[in-house]
Amino acid sequence: MSDRSQPDPILAELRARIDVLDETLIQLMADRFEVTRRVGAHKREVGLPKADPARERVQIAKLRRMAEEADLDPGFSEKLLRLIIDEVIRDYARAEA
Amino acid sequence: MSDRSQPDPILAELRARIDVLDETLIQLMADRFEVTRRVGAHKREVGLPKADPARERVQIAKLRRMAEEADLDPGFSEKLLRLIIDEVIRDYARAEA
Repeated sequence: MSDRSQPDPILAELRARIDVLDETLIQLMADRFEVTRRVGAHKREVGLPKADPARERVQIAKLRRMAEEADLDPGFSEKLLRLIIDEVIRDYARAEA
Repeated sequence: MSDRSQPDPILAELRARIDVLDETLIQLMADRFEVTRRVGAHKREVGLPKADPARERVQIAKLRRMAEEADLDPGFSEKLLRLIIDEVIRDYARAEA
C-alpha cells in the first residue's frame, strides 16, 4: 500500500497528462461545434433537413472501425459519437429558437 | 431548396472537416486510454482504489468551466466526461479480469 499522506508523483504526472488531453478534447469539441453550426446554417439556407440518418450511419461505422484499429472499445466510440450527434441536433434546435 | 441530385460542395467541405476532427477525437481517446491504463496499472501496484470520486468531481468541474469558456453546453461536456470516466472504470475492470 502507498503512503496516502504523501503525494504520489507517478500518479500526479499521469493525471497532468490526462488534464492536457481533456483540455484538447474540449477545444476539439468547440472546433467541431463551430463547423456543425455552419452545417446547420447552411442546411437552413438551402432547405435540407437537420438530421441525416444515412450520414450518421456512415460516420458511426467509420468511427467504429477507427476505434477498433486504435484498440478502443467500439461500443464506447459509438456511444461517444451518438452523444455528440445528439448534441449537434439540440444545438441546431437552439439556433432556430 | 437545393437540387438534391447534385452534390453540395459547401456541405461536402464542412463534412470533410468534421471527419478530420472525428479522426483526431478517436486518436485523442486512444492516447487518453493509454494514459489511464498506466494509471490503472499503477493503482493496482500501489494498492489504490480504481475509482477516485474526489478527483472525478474536480475534473468534471474544471471541464464544465472550460466548456463554458469555449461556448459549449456545460451539461454536454459533463455527460461527455462521465461517459469517458465510466469507460475508464470498465477498462480497469477488463485489465483485472
